[in-house]
Amino acid sequence: MRFVIIGGDAAGMSAASRARRNDPGMEIIVLEQGRDVSYSACNIPYNIADPRREMEDLVVRSARAFREKQGIDLRTGHRVEHIDRAGKTVAGRTAGGEPFTVAYDRLLIATGADPIKPPIEGMDLSGVFVVKNLEHGRRIKTFLRDRQAKRAVIVGMGYIALEMAEALSERGLAVDLIKPRAGLLPWLDPALSQPVRELLVARGVGVHDGYPIERIIAEGEQLRVIAGELRLEADVVIAAIGVTPNASLAREAGLDVSVGGSIAVDRGLRTSDSAIYAAGDCADSYHIVTGEKTWIPLALRANRAGWAVADNVCGQQVELPGVAGTAVFKVFAMQVARTGLNEAEARGAGFDPVRVQIRSKSRAGIYPGAQPVYVSMVGDRASGRLLGAQMTGIDQVAHRINAVAVALLAGMGVAEFSQSDLAYAPPFGPTWDPLLTAANQLVKQLKG
Amino acid sequence: MRFVIIGGDAAGMSAASRARRNDPGMEIIVLEQGRDVSYSACNIPYNIADPRREMEDLVVRSARAFREKQGIDLRTGHRVEHIDRAGKTVAGRTAGGEPFTVAYDRLLIATGADPIKPPIEGMDLSGVFVVKNLEHGRRIKTFLRDRQAKRAVIVGMGYIALEMAEALSERGLAVDLIKPRAGLLPWLDPALSQPVRELLVARGVGVHDGYPIERIIAEGEQLRVIAGELRLEADVVIAAIGVTPNASLAREAGLDVSVGGSIAVDRGLRTSDSAIYAAGDCADSYHIVTGEKTWIPLALRANRAGWAVADNVCGQQVELPGVAGTAVFKVFAMQVARTGLNEAEARGAGFDPVRVQIRSKSRAGIYPGAQPVYVSMVGDRASGRLLGAQMTGIDQVAHRINAVAVALLAGMGVAEFSQSDLAYAPPFGPTWDPLLTAANQLVKQLKG
Repeated sequence: MRFVIIGGDAAGMSAASRARRNDPGMEIIVLEQGRDVSYSACNIPYNIADPRREMEDLVVRSARAFREKQGIDLRTGHRVEHIDRAGKTVAGRTAGGEPFTVAYDRLLIATGADPIKPPIEGMDLSGVFVVKNLEHGRRIKTFLRDRQAKRAVIVGMGYIALEMAEALSERGLAVDLIKPRAGLLPWLDPALSQPVRELLVARGVGVHDGYPIERIIAEGEQLRVIAGELRLEADVVIAAIGVTPNASLAREAGLDVSVGGSIAVDRGLRTSDSAIYAAGDCADSYHIVTGEKTWIPLALRANRAGWAVADNVCGQQVELPGVAGTAVFKVFAMQVARTGLNEAEARGAGFDPVRVQIRSKSRAGIYPGAQPVYVSMVGDRASGRLLGAQMTGIDQVAHRINAVAVALLAGMGVAEFSQSDLAYAPPFGPTWDPLLTAANQLVKQLKG
Repeated sequence: MRFVIIGGDAAGMSAASRARRNDPGMEIIVLEQGRDVSYSACNIPYNIADPRREMEDLVVRSARAFREKQGIDLRTGHRVEHIDRAGKTVAGRTAGGEPFTVAYDRLLIATGADPIKPPIEGMDLSGVFVVKNLEHGRRIKTFLRDRQAKRAVIVGMGYIALEMAEALSERGLAVDLIKPRAGLLPWLDPALSQPVRELLVARGVGVHDGYPIERIIAEGEQLRVIAGELRLEADVVIAAIGVTPNASLAREAGLDVSVGGSIAVDRGLRTSDSAIYAAGDCADSYHIVTGEKTWIPLALRANRAGWAVADNVCGQQVELPGVAGTAVFKVFAMQVARTGLNEAEARGAGFDPVRVQIRSKSRAGIYPGAQPVYVSMVGDRASGRLLGAQMTGIDQVAHRINAVAVALLAGMGVAEFSQSDLAYAPPFGPTWDPLLTAANQLVKQLKG
């Protein structure tokens, strides 16, 4: 049995390692177009923040370790350009321009996602970057150091944009954020996003939402971002407006595609060709709340899908339930967390959503250091089912969301969730955890 | 309808307030033997830690507010000594010695728990205290201040004993902990309790487990705790070896009692007399994992039970699923959390437990500030069901336990829990949360 994997990051290398553990004798070939494998992409902003650290610190396991310790035939600099499903081969070129062809019994496409380049004039100027992989990180760090950059403009206000805003502020740069549509984190209730905005402004970050960029121009080494009346000077511009699944190989091979152009897979991670799997940021998944397909490129589900592919390739029958859309990030001291659906998403998915929004505290009110915790929680009027929650605050927010994530996986009703025996001690929350206060209010609203 | 409540703390006042919200016209009488109502008992150690704070800071809502704003007939200094179930009256004496009798339609017994006085010679000496209510707290604070106490011995090593050890250390006292049996937090695996012991020792606290105290003697103002060869000098001795349900009124009235002498109630909080409810630390509850009766005196379930009683008195049909035994506390920087059953408890409850114990990290390994997180997780071999987890660590441990608490309420299997879409970002954990790492290993063990 020869198991061939296209792509050597989270999903691909998880699958390779797991397949090796499952089957010491299996032939496992990984074809990676770049030179980096198995690195922590989520840590790139934190690495950029610290000039003393090398981007190589983010490598979780070296190519050499995969080859020598695990006996995985890992070929970096191998770009696959074509999948021949009938002949069960993949073909492409090495970084040196040599053509190659590799036959497979089972194939995993784990090609990840690419950063979206905004269609703006000037995106190709020197000093304008996207940020997704280690190579991007290296280029940005080198540029920041060589130019002694003092001012940055970040295009986008999603979590990577905000993490980059913190990272560059930590390095001493003045930072402006800009995006075309009004609204910072528009998937949050205004009461939840407002504290995020206030903290950004308090930390000196310019927040310019509602400014469509017309172009970026260069005057010598100085960049200028032009959006109507607004002109932002910058030494460096970083576009972080999101990513798109890298599904072109699959599409050209005639495999089914799905939400956002991602590769369609079943719960066992099989594409529309039963010999070919897809996993990670290039593939779709099921949403456990809606039961429908979704595309949420995050690290945990990539690792989990990689394992499931390896198990299935090795003859097991693993099916993944899907994702809840749980996500968390930090910007400066602010923690932002979500799982499941917000009110608009719930309505879009055909539910009749009821939403409560509360403000509670991170610790017992009289315990030193108690901070506001903002919670939105959404339930379905018809069924009473819990659909999702969002939270913000600067103290002990992130992990709280996991209680809701588990409740979503269990398909709990709001009333049942409100009876959860959550932990209480004064340093960690009020007697009624903010989630329980929200759930208690939502139970009442659902009855009303 | 006259609703009479014996006891004016968490369960009693929760019930009174909720009954008032449910029914603006109901006659609600609360009979409280002391002078304090509705205070945060869990905050007493933290209040003792800070000489600048008054014990009155812990009052959540004043007796006056209950009377004037909510129209609750709250009678402090009223000690109930007898329940006449046939006549539906309660009788007792005021603090001034006046007898009183009050008739009820529905009665709630919310008499709480009393601290256990260890049967040791010398427990009545000046400078020897128990700690459970505000009055105890006041006496301890006054004594510490007046005597300028420098050395403390704490009898017991449960969570209140450890919180008191931190509190007195914060005030600058030298602290020794002592208990008769060997083992600090014996319900934790040694790998989990060892970091707690190490931190206590590092903070200068003497940890003397396995020393049965023979007696406490006084030489002038100096106290000496004698346990065989071990002699501990102290200005103050605090016994915190646990609490016992205050169920004597109920027992004398012929109501059924249960685990540990607590008052037996059904899921609707009714005692064996359908006109009488019991709630809070004096009453038992169901354990959601074993389905059996248990007695776990903690604040959240007291509040929740108080609400449920009020709802049922007002004609609703509320049934509580029970408790998971979730508990969390902090001692110095160390966070200790548990929910459900440990291995020994699971075996005692008739399961065939399988346990894993792992060490992971609180943040991504390369993120600054990552600290060890120790997790034990227990599942049932026959059913695959998740039975419980315990965790210790100094960073981001407490809230993690709630994901397991919700899973227990849902009756999840370990395999299902292992598919939870838990939050990931480098400041908050590894890609695989420590709970998922434990669950993944436990899934393997359960198969093996």
